[in-house]
Amino acid sequence: MPSKVSGTLKMKEPMMSLSMTLPWLMLSVAVNFGLLLKLIHDGHLRMEWSGLIGNQENGAPLLSSLSSYSAEATLQTDEQIQLALINLDHGDPTMYQSYWKQVGDKTTVVISGWQSVSYFSDTKNLCWFLEPRFSNAATRLHNLVGNAETANQHLVVGTGSTQLFQAVLYALCPSDAPEPMSIVSAAPFYSSYPLITDCLKSGLYKWSGDASDFDKNEPYIELVTSPNNPDGSIREPVVNGSRGILVHDLAYYWPQYTPISSAADHDIMLFTLSKCTGHAGLRLGWALVKDEAIARKMVKYIEISSIGVSKDSQLRAAKILDVIADTYEQPEPSNESKRFFDYGYDEMAKRWRQLREAVRKGKTFSLPDLPVGTCNFANRTFGTQPAFAWLKCEKSIDDCESFLKKHKILTRGGMYFGSSKKYVRISLIGHEEEYNEFIRRLSLINSVESP
Amino acid sequence: MPSKVSGTLKMKEPMMSLSMTLPWLMLSVAVNFGLLLKLIHDGHLRMEWSGLIGNQENGAPLLSSLSSYSAEATLQTDEQIQLALINLDHGDPTMYQSYWKQVGDKTTVVISGWQSVSYFSDTKNLCWFLEPRFSNAATRLHNLVGNAETANQHLVVGTGSTQLFQAVLYALCPSDAPEPMSIVSAAPFYSSYPLITDCLKSGLYKWSGDASDFDKNEPYIELVTSPNNPDGSIREPVVNGSRGILVHDLAYYWPQYTPISSAADHDIMLFTLSKCTGHAGLRLGWALVKDEAIARKMVKYIEISSIGVSKDSQLRAAKILDVIADTYEQPEPSNESKRFFDYGYDEMAKRWRQLREAVRKGKTFSLPDLPVGTCNFANRTFGTQPAFAWLKCEKSIDDCESFLKKHKILTRGGMYFGSSKKYVRISLIGHEEEYNEFIRRLSLINSVESP
Repeated sequence: MPSKVSGTLKMKEPMMSLSMTLPWLMLSVAVNFGLLLKLIHDGHLRMEWSGLIGNQENGAPLLSSLSSYSAEATLQTDEQIQLALINLDHGDPTMYQSYWKQVGDKTTVVISGWQSVSYFSDTKNLCWFLEPRFSNAATRLHNLVGNAETANQHLVVGTGSTQLFQAVLYALCPSDAPEPMSIVSAAPFYSSYPLITDCLKSGLYKWSGDASDFDKNEPYIELVTSPNNPDGSIREPVVNGSRGILVHDLAYYWPQYTPISSAADHDIMLFTLSKCTGHAGLRLGWALVKDEAIARKMVKYIEISSIGVSKDSQLRAAKILDVIADTYEQPEPSNESKRFFDYGYDEMAKRWRQLREAVRKGKTFSLPDLPVGTCNFANRTFGTQPAFAWLKCEKSIDDCESFLKKHKILTRGGMYFGSSKKYVRISLIGHEEEYNEFIRRLSLINSVESP
Repeated sequence: MPSKVSGTLKMKEPMMSLSMTLPWLMLSVAVNFGLLLKLIHDGHLRMEWSGLIGNQENGAPLLSSLSSYSAEATLQTDEQIQLALINLDHGDPTMYQSYWKQVGDKTTVVISGWQSVSYFSDTKNLCWFLEPRFSNAATRLHNLVGNAETANQHLVVGTGSTQLFQAVLYALCPSDAPEPMSIVSAAPFYSSYPLITDCLKSGLYKWSGDASDFDKNEPYIELVTSPNNPDGSIREPVVNGSRGILVHDLAYYWPQYTPISSAADHDIMLFTLSKCTGHAGLRLGWALVKDEAIARKMVKYIEISSIGVSKDSQLRAAKILDVIADTYEQPEPSNESKRFFDYGYDEMAKRWRQLREAVRKGKTFSLPDLPVGTCNFANRTFGTQPAFAWLKCEKSIDDCESFLKKHKILTRGGMYFGSSKKYVRISLIGHEEEYNEFIRRLSLINSVESP
């Protein structure tokens, strides 16, 4: 008879010994943050979302867990804020929540119990689980913003761009190839690419690291993320090969982050709602794909791996995107509130000003220069202001992530992105109060460390 | 420079030459159904959802595409119905739509634009993307129905039980094993198991077919689906090995389909909303998992592959499950409409009566005997009445799927389930008008073929 499931996979419970009585200003306090990293999977070092957020009871609470995530918000004292962990590791786009709250009912959806019963959305579309309303709204927004060509493209919806990335790999890698296809991206690259690529040890593809080092005469896929996660750079392909296929991850090619210089018109382009409107919890992304056969194979992957994509999420996303477009195409004369991309632009500009100012206060940190360009959508010239900052620790600080962790600031270290420990990636799109507290701490650290 | 994406994956457009003028009663008419199967993936024969449903313009329309899927329903004539393709291949649970329509507003959800912004649902839960309301509602329903023990189980939510199945494989298969783990299930088994298992050629696991043939002295995972898809049988594990782990797929262990004889209390149990309430379009499933470490690894997989699960789908599902439980726990005295499981039971009983009657009319078909038991939930004794019928073609009909296809009835052939072409799986949970037309055709075929 089969044995019971064994307990050999059991992980140790994280332990924390942070004294709640120490003031955070004592910058050198030794804090046991042993729970913060689990460095276990297939030899990769990486962050665990779940490891980071669970079991905070025994130590400092996360500031975000005190914060106004929902209608059931609780107020916190200054002291609570100062003692709390600040989690800037994940790109959780909660910054946008306050905007959507002030927009009010316009984006509210009402879904009846008899809706979303069938697996099918549109049996005439090659992407049979794509809600026509979502497809129309996404196309409309691209045409309004001018960030992507939509004519002659097939739109494929996915459970976030994460699933679409896997669908692309499945679609592009022949199942009968003698060797797995090499997947590369120029470092620093999005830390999830290697994890997703290698998690099932696929025989179809394998992570081959930094595209700048790739010089094999064999088929490959190069991921071009522009603006780039984590460093905000504007990217072009870097492999000088003849047998490559390009996949453009354009999650951040929206006018709150970077000038929209032209409509992208690549073969395969990935987008996600999370970084466009901030609705990460909907788990919704879409791809624009020129080649019909590739689009069909992507649809096939999503069929096999999840039999389609939540229709509720698609319907909500359609509503939200349409409301954004409405405010530009049919502005209400009496409406004095900011339009979405203006809000996002102003907020990102403010946060980047705060950050650069805090960094300038001393010599502990530095930030990369980012390109300036003219945005055809907003009709203004500005420097890229990415969703993440790629912060470098200067002087003798070799491990920037650990250094900031001592000050209860959780970030993602450079090694997760194929880069140096001197760097960390910092999310700029979290809750405002969390961000302000981060800036306060960073300024203080900078002043103390650089007298 | 990298070349453009090649067009080598391009599929041929399906072609149909069905004359719309021939009456369907001419049972021997030759129909070109060349589009119906694409038998291409990794040597497996299998159905394509997308292949089946797209591009019906040139041939007979799908009956379901004429039907009342939505509020924008169009009426069709008897002639249209008789000429249409009937698709009983997929288990699309549209049967339930009429129930939810008559329930009205009670299951309607209203979701504001500022909700579901964060990736996180509950940072205290190991399944950090699980909405507490959904977790509570699913637990409440299990406790009401008595089909699963919920105490001492970890609930993990997934994008349908399809994603949870992959999460289970990831969680149970060590990443450092010398060989991929064998995944088996007794034939006839759910046709998607081999596809999902082998689609990425994982080095962690591989499909090893019929559990009844498995006798290797090595680790394995046995999938126990009960009631079974496709044949409705009540299953126990069949491998007589000592190194196996059991995964119970209990998608159909609900009182409309089978007597609830006891609360299942296995190590890993999978459930899905699609077959419980009929809401396939939400793409929502859940697992009950005893071992915390396994639950954590499943959460990790869902984090890597889709960074969680749609919160909108979870909120809607919570509402629907709560409304069902309310009608049993707090019945409204004035409410004369049927409660959900009574509706489902009555509808399944009626459809099985119709099917058995049609089969008895001749000697062309047969159906398996199904077990009778006492249902502790409904307090009645009845025979299992599964969501699918496992129909056998008798006499000299060797390919039952092709035979029925000639009569414009699309089913899934036995070979997809590791069984014989003499069998087909037929969905009993589609639209009523489609089902009635199917019964009419089946009776007629049976009468004509068995004079």
